[in-house]
Amino acid sequence: MKPTSTPRRSPGPVACGLDLFGDKWTLLVVRDLLLGHQRFKDFTDSPERIPTNILTDRLNRLHDHGTITRIPAPDGSRHSAYQLTPKGEALLPVITAIRDWGLQWEKGTRASRTTTR
Amino acid sequence: MKPTSTPRRSPGPVACGLDLFGDKWTLLVVRDLLLGHQRFKDFTDSPERIPTNILTDRLNRLHDHGTITRIPAPDGSRHSAYQLTPKGEALLPVITAIRDWGLQWEKGTRASRTTTR
Repeated sequence: MKPTSTPRRSPGPVACGLDLFGDKWTLLVVRDLLLGHQRFKDFTDSPERIPTNILTDRLNRLHDHGTITRIPAPDGSRHSAYQLTPKGEALLPVITAIRDWGLQWEKGTRASRTTTR
Repeated sequence: MKPTSTPRRSPGPVACGLDLFGDKWTLLVVRDLLLGHQRFKDFTDSPERIPTNILTDRLNRLHDHGTITRIPAPDGSRHSAYQLTPKGEALLPVITAIRDWGLQWEKGTRASRTTTR
């Protein structure tokens, strides 16, 4: 695991969490991993259409922070696949809280699938 | 309330939540509001030292999305102060989940104050 490249803004746990996943995309990748997505293409197929350069960056960052591991591709191809570590799986309550807030307060949102596996 | 300027990436509630607060700063402002901070200076005094131009942008965005209201300054000055609406207060479980994750998985983090008022 590589050390974090940017220094912490504070020792506060909320700030440290946001140093890792405070952006528009990272938690969508975690959401998809919680849904069982493993391959690069699984993530780019999601409705938000994450750009491939951003996806590569976020997968590397999640990996560097010990939240995902690389695993052999399920189809036996040479491509990597990805799986959450316990540290990554522990983000489920964060995703659930955001999902619940969105469903209650943002009109017209719908969760097409549950975020539990 | 002004309409959202950027279109939704998907109807998914996680994506819609992140369209509003998916960045390094917005949820820190919400954290401070939950702690009872009201004045511009209260937010810039937080340990992360949010830049004033970013703070102005985030307060405007939170206001445009109906998560905060402007109130008279408690000291009677001409400056605005800010307070969470019910939609903003409903972000408490999101902050709590991130705090708990940070405390458990990011070494050396500490919550100096509780996030409940």
